Amino acid sequence: MAEGDDRLRVGYEIEGPVAEAAARGEAIAREQTVEVPAEVVRDAFFQERVVGRVESVEEHGAARATVTIAYPAAVTAHDPAQLLNVIFGNTSLQPDVRCVDVALPESIQRALGGPRFGAAALHERAGVRDRALTCTAIKPMGLDTKQLADLCEQFARAGIDVVKDDHGLAEQPWSGFEARVAACLEATRRAAEETGREALYVPNLIGSPERVRRALDLAQAAGARAVMAAPMLIGLPCFWELATRHSDVPVLAHPAFGGALRIAPEVLFGTLLRAYGADAVIFVSFGSRFRMTRASCTDIADALRAPRPALAPSLPVPAGGIRLDNAAEVARCYGPESMLLVGGDLQVGGESPEARARRFVAAVAAAGSDQA
Amino acid sequence: MAEGDDRLRVGYEIEGPVAEAAARGEAIAREQTVEVPAEVVRDAFFQERVVGRVESVEEHGAARATVTIAYPAAVTAHDPAQLLNVIFGNTSLQPDVRCVDVALPESIQRALGGPRFGAAALHERAGVRDRALTCTAIKPMGLDTKQLADLCEQFARAGIDVVKDDHGLAEQPWSGFEARVAACLEATRRAAEETGREALYVPNLIGSPERVRRALDLAQAAGARAVMAAPMLIGLPCFWELATRHSDVPVLAHPAFGGALRIAPEVLFGTLLRAYGADAVIFVSFGSRFRMTRASCTDIADALRAPRPALAPSLPVPAGGIRLDNAAEVARCYGPESMLLVGGDLQVGGESPEARARRFVAAVAAAGSDQA
Repeated sequence: MAEGDDRLRVGYEIEGPVAEAAARGEAIAREQTVEVPAEVVRDAFFQERVVGRVESVEEHGAARATVTIAYPAAVTAHDPAQLLNVIFGNTSLQPDVRCVDVALPESIQRALGGPRFGAAALHERAGVRDRALTCTAIKPMGLDTKQLADLCEQFARAGIDVVKDDHGLAEQPWSGFEARVAACLEATRRAAEETGREALYVPNLIGSPERVRRALDLAQAAGARAVMAAPMLIGLPCFWELATRHSDVPVLAHPAFGGALRIAPEVLFGTLLRAYGADAVIFVSFGSRFRMTRASCTDIADALRAPRPALAPSLPVPAGGIRLDNAAEVARCYGPESMLLVGGDLQVGGESPEARARRFVAAVAAAGSDQA
Repeated sequence: MAEGDDRLRVGYEIEGPVAEAAARGEAIAREQTVEVPAEVVRDAFFQERVVGRVESVEEHGAARATVTIAYPAAVTAHDPAQLLNVIFGNTSLQPDVRCVDVALPESIQRALGGPRFGAAALHERAGVRDRALTCTAIKPMGLDTKQLADLCEQFARAGIDVVKDDHGLAEQPWSGFEARVAACLEATRRAAEETGREALYVPNLIGSPERVRRALDLAQAAGARAVMAAPMLIGLPCFWELATRHSDVPVLAHPAFGGALRIAPEVLFGTLLRAYGADAVIFVSFGSRFRMTRASCTDIADALRAPRPALAPSLPVPAGGIRLDNAAEVARCYGPESMLLVGGDLQVGGESPEARARRFVAAVAAAGSDQA
């Protein structure tokens, strides 16, 4: 979709007779802006400056059409919450409409700001070029802080680049945030004395905005060089403030609660999370326990890396149950500008997590040299 | 579902062979907690204390089943974001699973706190008993502050109880927040000199957490006696902080972006928004331009008003395109402990908004005396 003028373009897929699609589109354009019947906003002022206009109707057979609406950027107030509202606020309540495409004009890209560090930041902090990064998570929830830090140390010794908290680790009775961050940073430092290279430990920030802010401050004070949060759990505008206003380190976005949306994954994980400031975006990939097509996954990765007038690229992080036995194939698909996340499969099969982590690291390194 | 022990119960509707439903349920119980393969968490400790357990499988024909999982409350850390994560975080990314039921144990109800003012607050502030309240919105976006305040005054003079900002009003170029709040409060005061009763003007808070907080402070300093926000736009944990920590006045919840979820409306609008502190919950009703069944709507209203060990009731606010010609029918359905929201239909048909607002007020008053 065009990005040249100062209009936000949104594609909606509508189920129902295609003969009615244009009229449904007009109704959506009003619903998302003025929210009054057509007769109230017949003036040229409203039509030109406020109400969105239907730019195209693409029919898919007799009962499905994609309608593209161009909204004046001003209706979003260039605000991260009002932007979501214009994209899919009330229309999300219509069960036969999906949001399938979003193109942000330059003014909105600049207002949001996008990633502050961008796709290259994690490669730089890990000291790696020319291959995909490796990433895993410390879990399961229920382990105490010492056990989690021990896992962290095993993974770091095995040469994993990025070791993150599982996204469900919060202030449960078994392990609290502040002690966990200190113990895991200490664990990566100990491992670095052996390996000569320090893994990035990434704490998970979760909670209400004030709790997220407090956790960020604690993590940064303890020396964390990257953090993670789930934008759809804490709220996209809260994530935006975290990534673009508060954090002094790169921020990874976790996809939890994101599939709850009737928004195409390419839009949410590719277009929106990058605009909202994620330096790296974790998404469920093909080759995982989630049913994503390879095409949809490469579309997400492409959207995260495509040139944009005002947004640095974000690093794609395929995840969701990638296994040792297909990690090389997945790594080859996404190429070196990515980071592979393998979690539970490093803790099965009777071997130590460290031994399996070494095999994961070797598989991704081999995939990198295949490509070079 | 039971609420007696300290377990969070969630019902998931799973599409697919019912013979596999129990195994799918076991996988969901792990996915939402430990997120590792079964062999990693065979210990009794994990099974009893951390992993959820499948309590029931209800088959609906051959290809659909509802699985109920009971999670130990401790895995939620009693945190508003981690609670969403346990309810539907990663599993939302499975396209064949819907979240259809949630029962919060008393410990989670107490941790969240629920409405601080509750269902009765708006009736009290409006000085009304024994009938549903009337509510409308000032719009369309694109009007300037003076025009919006003039509409507010017309509605107040007509006897509408609650006049709110349209939920899309933000810091657009045509009308800024601070000036609008001052002008509309002044308008309701002017009308009150004539009518002897002051309408409640309810400003819309939208933006990132810091912007929402600033807007709340401005609104309260100006004398607003209630505010509104859309929990799914600003993020549920941000809404929770607003409603239960920051606001000194009742908070209305707007449903925008909420239908984007593959969560049953009864769960999101009935159970969750009340637990997260909404004093009044706006939802799209039967008799509107959205396709909701009457049964689903009364389920939402029932969930907002049902006795709970640790939660005050929330006021149901049916909306979404209710018209003058069916307002009385809708009012009779929900009864006096509710508030009817009619928006665009007060601005059509060539009459003045004030004249149509008077007819709306009369219709709801008549429905009230029908019941009495």
